[in-house]
Amino acid sequence: LPSKLPDIGVSIFTQMTLLAQETGAINLAQGFPDYDPPQALLEALARHARTPGHHQYAPMPGLPRLREAIAAQVARLQPDAPAPDPATEITLTAGATEALYAVLAAVVRPGDEVLVFEPAYDLYGPAIRLQGGVPRYVRLPAPHFRPDWDAVRRVVSARTRLVLVNTPHNPSGAVFSNEDWDALAKLLAGTNTLVLSDEVYEHLVFDGTRHRSARQHPELRERSFVLSSFGKTYHATGWKVGYCIAPPALTTEVRRVHQFLTFAVNTPTQHALADALEADPADAHARGLAAFYQAKRDQFRALLTEGGWDLLPVPGGYFQLARYDAFSPASDLAFAQYLAREKGVAVIPVSAFYHNGFDEGLIRFCFAKEATTLEAAAARLR
Amino acid sequence: LPSKLPDIGVSIFTQMTLLAQETGAINLAQGFPDYDPPQALLEALARHARTPGHHQYAPMPGLPRLREAIAAQVARLQPDAPAPDPATEITLTAGATEALYAVLAAVVRPGDEVLVFEPAYDLYGPAIRLQGGVPRYVRLPAPHFRPDWDAVRRVVSARTRLVLVNTPHNPSGAVFSNEDWDALAKLLAGTNTLVLSDEVYEHLVFDGTRHRSARQHPELRERSFVLSSFGKTYHATGWKVGYCIAPPALTTEVRRVHQFLTFAVNTPTQHALADALEADPADAHARGLAAFYQAKRDQFRALLTEGGWDLLPVPGGYFQLARYDAFSPASDLAFAQYLAREKGVAVIPVSAFYHNGFDEGLIRFCFAKEATTLEAAAARLR
Ligand SMILES: CSCCC(=O)C(=O)O
Ligand SMILES: CSCCC(=O)C(=O)O
Repeated sequence: LPSKLPDIGVSIFTQMTLLAQETGAINLAQGFPDYDPPQALLEALARHARTPGHHQYAPMPGLPRLREAIAAQVARLQPDAPAPDPATEITLTAGATEALYAVLAAVVRPGDEVLVFEPAYDLYGPAIRLQGGVPRYVRLPAPHFRPDWDAVRRVVSARTRLVLVNTPHNPSGAVFSNEDWDALAKLLAGTNTLVLSDEVYEHLVFDGTRHRSARQHPELRERSFVLSSFGKTYHATGWKVGYCIAPPALTTEVRRVHQFLTFAVNTPTQHALADALEADPADAHARGLAAFYQAKRDQFRALLTEGGWDLLPVPGGYFQLARYDAFSPASDLAFAQYLAREKGVAVIPVSAFYHNGFDEGLIRFCFAKEATTLEAAAARLR
Repeated sequence: LPSKLPDIGVSIFTQMTLLAQETGAINLAQGFPDYDPPQALLEALARHARTPGHHQYAPMPGLPRLREAIAAQVARLQPDAPAPDPATEITLTAGATEALYAVLAAVVRPGDEVLVFEPAYDLYGPAIRLQGGVPRYVRLPAPHFRPDWDAVRRVVSARTRLVLVNTPHNPSGAVFSNEDWDALAKLLAGTNTLVLSDEVYEHLVFDGTRHRSARQHPELRERSFVLSSFGKTYHATGWKVGYCIAPPALTTEVRRVHQFLTFAVNTPTQHALADALEADPADAHARGLAAFYQAKRDQFRALLTEGGWDLLPVPGGYFQLARYDAFSPASDLAFAQYLAREKGVAVIPVSAFYHNGFDEGLIRFCFAKEATTLEAAAARLR
């Protein structure tokens, strides 16, 4: 059987998590919290687990009450954009990962180009190639990882089916500004190019900066698929519930694929999440995440700076990038392996986020961890 | 946005469920039980919902303890086949639906042909076409829906990448016999053609007949992806946990795609299912399903026969097909709509299982329902 993805091995996230288990290293590699979802949400899941009649197929686009709760929250948090219609604009998926794949499968045809900013989450390229699409990479320059719009303009053409945006950005935390969205809108005006905006870290934006969704840009809204995930928002990466918000015509296409990819999402989990949203009409949980994660970032940065590390700015998300030139190892991967084996801390080498393995001497730490975990890791990293 | 699946509308299952809700009809259309999973399984889910540390990403191929429990059960139930290796041969997916899509995405390239027996579950054709593949349909003749191997031989060629088998078969309940598997093995000997065997109704085989898996055929095992689902086995279609068993080289390809389709499956649900399997080393639950569903089939058949219906044989699965020539409506869809609106029972028109809408005057009832539901439906159907 000739492979359709011959270059895809075990992902760097799995590799580093296994290396952490093997070596007993503190796992700051794969992006997941080492704390649990809010207790009320766990109780809600336990309750729905025991509720008769909550165990068969949910409707294909998602439970109506969960779609309504999402629409209401989005309307509150993005008051300058029209509220999404739960019936025709919101689709629940098996994590944002399924949403991403469904959008690509729905819109990318063989030969279509898709613009991808690098560094990029490792699934973008292979998922595009599985549709016969051609990823066109534009590099975001360190240390701020803001798009160079002249560089983007040179790559966008009539063949560009889709531009893939990720804000806040994994791994750098860079956040699209109003000016970035304006530049993209200007570039795409009069074209049929669509936008896929992966906003799973939407609530994790620091220092008073505000997340701006593709939906909040009047000229981009009609061409945008916006993705988010309860995994990141509720510290429940293992629950695998995400969603896609898009105008009705685009949602129709996503659902056509979603119907065949997974059909529907776990029913009791959807009920539990609907309870959590309904119980929090002031969005205290979502609104509190920025301060919660900013405190972690600040703690971890202070500890690492004290330990002599050269850190990049972190405007959002839950990752800290660091330079390590002083050590001059053979590669960032070699350095990451050294850190796990010799220092007892697992991290991600940033070259894993480049299709060609570009290595600029950066590693990524996940700071979505208990304060004590961050302290212990920093102590090992001195 | 030109659609990649322009002919795909709301699925017949969703349509009929909505019509049932609208009209108050008893829903014997979409295939799901109107009873709950076993109480111990619900308690297990509630327990894991409350367990700290069970809420982050499961390993990409599935929780090791669940893969081990599946391997042990398969070894017990299929003693004539080598036990599957949980490390390299079992992959948990978001329902068998994701497994099906992942296999197709992993192996079908543009122009590849895939043999599909019709009537066929509605996702097979579109999911093949999304890979650029070409479905080649072979019709299973009523009332037994057994393959005509001469007809199959005329369609299989060097372009056939995959043969899609579904046993027990939805919607007919037909079960592949040893002779069917032998015929397929003979046909594929010396070719590179693979087999995707959808066996989600594997435990629902009646009248002493035994389910035979593609894995149990020594000449097919090495080229077969075998799918099953806890949704069907544990009356939990809404939990969305299925799996794929395949030899290591094939599993590598499925996982390469699964990693990007959904990455991992809901963690607390996997723990709950592992508990259920571990607590039942005699497989009493799985072994009891045949008698449980045979009783439902027999009850429903007796009631419908009394009511004057012309029923087809049901060797497996959870559906009853019926002819209705006497009524001579415009189409099976028109008849199904009439039944929902005028008689108060929702069913599926079997033409929905043919890519070209072939209508031979059959409707499908789901008998995975409480005895009282079946009685009430039969009373309305007299
Ligand atoms: C699905 S494993 C990767 C988790 C993640 O978002 C990351 O570490 O970047
Ligand atoms: C995913 S809805 C269809 C359920 C089913 O298996 C059927 O009714 O055939």
